[in-house]
Amino acid sequence: MHRLFRKTGALSALALTGMTLSGCVLQAASAVPSIMQAAAAARGTRQPAPDLPLPPSPPAGQQWLYGSAEGTIATRQTYDALTRFALARAADRPAQSVVLSDGPGIDAGFMPCDDKPLAVLFDADETLIWNLGAMRWFAENDREFDPAIWSEWERTGAGKSAAMPGAVEALQKLRAAGITIVANTNRRADTAAGTVATLRAAGLGDFEHGRTLFLSGDDDGGSKKDGRRATIAAQYCVIAMAGDQLGDFSDVFNAPSLSPRERKLIATRPPVDQLWGAGWFLFANPLYGPSIRGTFDDIYPAESRWAPDADAP
Amino acid sequence: MHRLFRKTGALSALALTGMTLSGCVLQAASAVPSIMQAAAAARGTRQPAPDLPLPPSPPAGQQWLYGSAEGTIATRQTYDALTRFALARAADRPAQSVVLSDGPGIDAGFMPCDDKPLAVLFDADETLIWNLGAMRWFAENDREFDPAIWSEWERTGAGKSAAMPGAVEALQKLRAAGITIVANTNRRADTAAGTVATLRAAGLGDFEHGRTLFLSGDDDGGSKKDGRRATIAAQYCVIAMAGDQLGDFSDVFNAPSLSPRERKLIATRPPVDQLWGAGWFLFANPLYGPSIRGTFDDIYPAESRWAPDADAP
Repeated sequence: MHRLFRKTGALSALALTGMTLSGCVLQAASAVPSIMQAAAAARGTRQPAPDLPLPPSPPAGQQWLYGSAEGTIATRQTYDALTRFALARAADRPAQSVVLSDGPGIDAGFMPCDDKPLAVLFDADETLIWNLGAMRWFAENDREFDPAIWSEWERTGAGKSAAMPGAVEALQKLRAAGITIVANTNRRADTAAGTVATLRAAGLGDFEHGRTLFLSGDDDGGSKKDGRRATIAAQYCVIAMAGDQLGDFSDVFNAPSLSPRERKLIATRPPVDQLWGAGWFLFANPLYGPSIRGTFDDIYPAESRWAPDADAP
Repeated sequence: MHRLFRKTGALSALALTGMTLSGCVLQAASAVPSIMQAAAAARGTRQPAPDLPLPPSPPAGQQWLYGSAEGTIATRQTYDALTRFALARAADRPAQSVVLSDGPGIDAGFMPCDDKPLAVLFDADETLIWNLGAMRWFAENDREFDPAIWSEWERTGAGKSAAMPGAVEALQKLRAAGITIVANTNRRADTAAGTVATLRAAGLGDFEHGRTLFLSGDDDGGSKKDGRRATIAAQYCVIAMAGDQLGDFSDVFNAPSLSPRERKLIATRPPVDQLWGAGWFLFANPLYGPSIRGTFDDIYPAESRWAPDADAP
């Protein structure tokens, strides 16, 4: 998946790398004081003189997701819910999977389960693992996205990612119940060995490219996952899916013509509204992805406009 | 709750307003092109000349939480889980509430339920409602936190907040099951009428200060909520709690001496680890709060350090 990095506070043009709507925006480190330095300033302890550059702070999204108790708890809540749901389904096999059938739009129904082996299907980046090594390096060095560097990360980053909170325990319980864990990720087919090593080093067990690991380049869909999902659902009864962005569930949600508002509408109304938290499990990732889009008018309803008295809107 | 706003990219000193560790950081708008403008640039459509300032983009956290399908889905998943849990508990009254007893640390057990009326206890800001009007105004005007403006927002913002996705339906179902909805918020006692109006205008029903609405200033605990929780749990059998930061559950997690790493540890290990998603429900809020803290070393484990070959770490 191509990622688009935003240099916080700069007017520089973005480095676009064949960006599709599955591209994303990463925030670079902010140069402002961290809240801890601010607290120190408030207490009157020694601080650098105001005209010296302060060390960069991580972007707020990284502080929340990777650093805070709250980000860990939000993630673990989702892993626990997914595990409970999948174990219940495993004990009472469904007739249909949670993978949408190939067909126009999202009303085509679901792929049948027949007597295929049970599986839970995961995205990898910021769904199974947190890409700590690369995310820190880009943010701390205030660097924009560089696909060559990200490819190197895919190849050499094993051991520098972490399993997300709750993931190791979830996969252990699911596998113990006879459920196959399958990953469908936009990491690249030509770095498959690095991704296999990364997932293993994170404590998530073994994945085999083409059997339990599906990558961008496996077919001609590029970063679109529908084709790979169809391949997977032809072999497995997929009882739950997990991801951090809508393309991990269906490509229809990332159609380029959709505004953020339209995209939100089609993903949260029938027939898919019933799936969230009950077959489709969405992990919070406020750092990058097609969710990180929109002007103020895109994301705020007009009727919520407010201003204090001293300032006219 | 005092909030600390971070001016993205500026080295200006932060305006500290009696900040405690329950203070928080809000990101101001970034001046960089939005991903949509970047896409337009990629397609070669007409763009402002590079040396003209581009209109500000919302912070990524706001794009994710307020604007994206993903932020809405993550929120709705949590509301659905809370509702299912609370309805099950209502049908099978517990002996204990989910409010920790007053006592040293978090091992003191829970307040008893006896035959008190059932209740679910909610924080308000970014737990029941999204503060769209004020959040947009501060970000779009690149303004730092101003407690006078936030007080004005509490007084006059009714109708400019929105109920969070899933909240209206959840409260309807819980109330229909005989559960009292109680809010414990750090909005101020002296703006109680504005907060009552805000919650009503958001479609969340009626709240009564001192009976179903508890505010900062109701006791001498300031922004610490334990005292108010004890008051509430003396009257109600609290079967579930909801919030967006750890102080919504117990003040012990916001002790000023705790590093982000320590805070994460005590909130995610026994005895409280079992509560998350099963009595205590945490809503994703990557925009502000005590979760938005930490240096790179605070939030990234040392063993995750990585660099591409061309750059030594």
